[in-house]
Amino acid sequence: MKKSLIALAVLAASGAAMAQSSVTLFGVVDATYAYGSGSVSNRSQLTNSGYNSSRLGFRGVEDLGGGMTASFWLEAGVNNDNGTGGSTNTNNQATGASASGGLVFNRRSTVSLSGGFGEVRLGRDYTPQFWNLTVFDPFGTNGVGTTQTLNSSLGGPVTVRASNSIGYFLPGKLGGFYGQAQYYLGENASNAANKKDGTGLALRAGFANGPINVAVAFSDTKYLAGNIKTFNLGGQYDLGMAKVMAHYNQDRNSAATAPDGSGWLIGGLIPVGAGEIRLAYSTYKTDVAVGADPKSNKLALGYVHNLSKRTALYATYAHVSNKNGAAQALNGAVTAAGSNSNGYDLGIRHSF
Amino acid sequence: MKKSLIALAVLAASGAAMAQSSVTLFGVVDATYAYGSGSVSNRSQLTNSGYNSSRLGFRGVEDLGGGMTASFWLEAGVNNDNGTGGSTNTNNQATGASASGGLVFNRRSTVSLSGGFGEVRLGRDYTPQFWNLTVFDPFGTNGVGTTQTLNSSLGGPVTVRASNSIGYFLPGKLGGFYGQAQYYLGENASNAANKKDGTGLALRAGFANGPINVAVAFSDTKYLAGNIKTFNLGGQYDLGMAKVMAHYNQDRNSAATAPDGSGWLIGGLIPVGAGEIRLAYSTYKTDVAVGADPKSNKLALGYVHNLSKRTALYATYAHVSNKNGAAQALNGAVTAAGSNSNGYDLGIRHSF
Amino acid sequence: MKKSLIALAVLAASGAAMAQSSVTLFGVVDATYAYGSGSVSNRSQLTNSGYNSSRLGFRGVEDLGGGMTASFWLEAGVNNDNGTGGSTNTNNQATGASASGGLVFNRRSTVSLSGGFGEVRLGRDYTPQFWNLTVFDPFGTNGVGTTQTLNSSLGGPVTVRASNSIGYFLPGKLGGFYGQAQYYLGENASNAANKKDGTGLALRAGFANGPINVAVAFSDTKYLAGNIKTFNLGGQYDLGMAKVMAHYNQDRNSAATAPDGSGWLIGGLIPVGAGEIRLAYSTYKTDVAVGADPKSNKLALGYVHNLSKRTALYATYAHVSNKNGAAQALNGAVTAAGSNSNGYDLGIRHSF
Repeated sequence: MKKSLIALAVLAASGAAMAQSSVTLFGVVDATYAYGSGSVSNRSQLTNSGYNSSRLGFRGVEDLGGGMTASFWLEAGVNNDNGTGGSTNTNNQATGASASGGLVFNRRSTVSLSGGFGEVRLGRDYTPQFWNLTVFDPFGTNGVGTTQTLNSSLGGPVTVRASNSIGYFLPGKLGGFYGQAQYYLGENASNAANKKDGTGLALRAGFANGPINVAVAFSDTKYLAGNIKTFNLGGQYDLGMAKVMAHYNQDRNSAATAPDGSGWLIGGLIPVGAGEIRLAYSTYKTDVAVGADPKSNKLALGYVHNLSKRTALYATYAHVSNKNGAAQALNGAVTAAGSNSNGYDLGIRHSF
Repeated sequence: MKKSLIALAVLAASGAAMAQSSVTLFGVVDATYAYGSGSVSNRSQLTNSGYNSSRLGFRGVEDLGGGMTASFWLEAGVNNDNGTGGSTNTNNQATGASASGGLVFNRRSTVSLSGGFGEVRLGRDYTPQFWNLTVFDPFGTNGVGTTQTLNSSLGGPVTVRASNSIGYFLPGKLGGFYGQAQYYLGENASNAANKKDGTGLALRAGFANGPINVAVAFSDTKYLAGNIKTFNLGGQYDLGMAKVMAHYNQDRNSAATAPDGSGWLIGGLIPVGAGEIRLAYSTYKTDVAVGADPKSNKLALGYVHNLSKRTALYATYAHVSNKNGAAQALNGAVTAAGSNSNGYDLGIRHSF
Repeated sequence: MKKSLIALAVLAASGAAMAQSSVTLFGVVDATYAYGSGSVSNRSQLTNSGYNSSRLGFRGVEDLGGGMTASFWLEAGVNNDNGTGGSTNTNNQATGASASGGLVFNRRSTVSLSGGFGEVRLGRDYTPQFWNLTVFDPFGTNGVGTTQTLNSSLGGPVTVRASNSIGYFLPGKLGGFYGQAQYYLGENASNAANKKDGTGLALRAGFANGPINVAVAFSDTKYLAGNIKTFNLGGQYDLGMAKVMAHYNQDRNSAATAPDGSGWLIGGLIPVGAGEIRLAYSTYKTDVAVGADPKSNKLALGYVHNLSKRTALYATYAHVSNKNGAAQALNGAVTAAGSNSNGYDLGIRHSF
């Protein structure tokens, strides 16, 4: 017997109070033909997540009464080109990284309690320091167009997500102000040389109202090889005929021998009928050595054509130019230090 | 399009006959801040399953007519602090243990045929010898309060579950009597030195009626390093103002050089408004050497506060004292032989 | 709260246009007691997929209007005897094989766009060269009865499925004619010695109308160790009282030192009340050395008894005779070169 799931209620993505209890199955299957070229080698792939990250998820919300809700969110990355799952990191340290293989709820696995006080969220989740990079990137940190401030980032294992986290989110009705705090644990033994490795605190605050959305974030993560402090801010303005956006990010490592890095992006989204043009220029520079700061500049241009709200075709082209020994390359290509790389994605994104 | 699942029918946990066919998605997301201290090192974690085991499952039942039903049950453990899955064991031997990583249906993966004759169940399932330890533990073998008869157990790879099992359950309507038998295969080649390794037989019988529930179980599992026979019994009486419970467990190894072990628990559950107080004292002793039997005694105290049937907050404190070289420690702490360990959990359990 | 999924609409297995959007959860749990004997060793197992492959899947279709649909299909193998998932291959090469462990969508993970032009399907999917082996095998390439043309096949990593594939299917309404083409990528770097390793092209065409179904397939896959060309054809005729079927398969390796192989099957399915008798004789020969071509002949006999459309009991017996150094054995047994092997399955298949 084949069973299908009936559409009943859409859940809010955040833990905002809802009067109805429900469980939702959701996902994205995004396949892309990706080509990359570099001075050393090129690569052709049928890969995934060129526009949105492929995933399979289960989430639900329960109305506890009195304005309180409990909710859960289990979301697994899916490499739909070969069927494998994504990778997670169990301790926010280099030692905790898992190879891509079986399905894991690497994208998010949380349980929350929400109410007038806001939301307390426990588990594996995005870090506050990641949001400005993706929200204010026209390419949403997916595919060949992903901002160079993420691709070159020196933010360490918690650049995007953290495991073992305790998060707090401000409630939704604060006149446009929003904010979150997150503490994540490395969980090492108290007598270990790196007892604080993978432990950190991060904050984000912003304001969204009408056409404007701006936010700032800061994080401080302990690592045996040097603590990393990340600071970033970003903003977006909706002109109607286009959305313009920009962000700046810097990563500082407390170890004298470890490089710092910083970069920025400027870009925009231009609606065109059922589609959207995407444009971004981004750059990131690290101070590896005196007088020779590797730097990568990226130009990305794309178009998304919506066949429906759930299904879209897309094409993205990107070019990276490397300076002072940087060797960033696109879509699996390899390029020599100081050489360029080009790449493109042609794909389809289907969500459910 | 977001789709939600409509509540339609609750499935019986056992294979009792049902008139309606259905498929059910179910799960638990339980997150806990866990702290443990010992004489060597302490540990802080945001971990999972402090009250109930986190899981994601799919199960269904089909009415075949004539009082017969077919059913399936696929249930995966979820480490929701970092998104990984649980671990299973493919051959009931030390060699078959898998590391925690991708999602596996380690908790249960079975198909059943049920009728007036009872239930035949095939696949990976709990062993009969496990039930008395968990049913008659106020902490349900979860979290820092877990009975020491499980934490110190010498029962081997099939202490909790067995793969490759053929199980039989008595039908439900026997005036309160219940029982099950299970045969599990190690699946080794017939010419292997350890050809029976991981193969065993286990039985459990009990009686539940009104306030009383008692049961006894026995298992005999072949291992290359010595066969293990486990015997246990337990009981519970519901006084109304409280449930009191106790169990006794012993593990005997046929190898002269391998230690035997035994232990017991006494505990209770006391309803308090929307909550419940949990109390247990448990102990386990092994006869490693003449005149020096390592022994661990555990005292656990907890409180669960139900926000709803599905959502609860909980706190548990436990203390272990070790004697004669035992070194059991709590929540990831490490303690020296003969030293104590303390731990506590503070968490939230949400089920769906 | 337990939630169950309501039956609403059955999805077509192919991408044929549908007027309604839906998401479907589906699966099979098939458990079997499997015994195999050989001249070296025998083996007893409680294993899976003796009749149909155990699986858990999620699929959906969206009506885009104008005769167009988008659809996805994520299907994971499940080893329900121990809870592990299946194995996939990320690059269609020997290096890309993954061990069975966590759940992966190894059976199929695709996204499709369909319309009057047919279907374009991207991701991991069955290869065109596999279909004739399974469709025209009375045992559907499952269990101890599986055709020897698959068990001895020299078709390489893409014998059954390919990752990174771009597939095209003819539309459904062509008077019985059907066809598909598939290109799959090994995704190696352009400067690698084996840059085309795992890359291939395959085609299949057939005709199905009334009692007849015939098809032919061809594939050409590049490997560092020698390219493999597979050719096969098969057919089935429904006599009413029985279906008779046959297929032929050959695998040619371009490397002079690598063996070629070929084989065929003849078999039938005979309906008997609520059940079906299954019969097949198959053989496969490889030209490993001059004058000594290893050859395995297999006779398989089975019976399936349907308790419902979803649930069936089955029994299968098979015998393999090996010649000229072949050593094929059944159900985990090991047999010496030139010796025989016997095996049987006794199982239950439940689908949902």
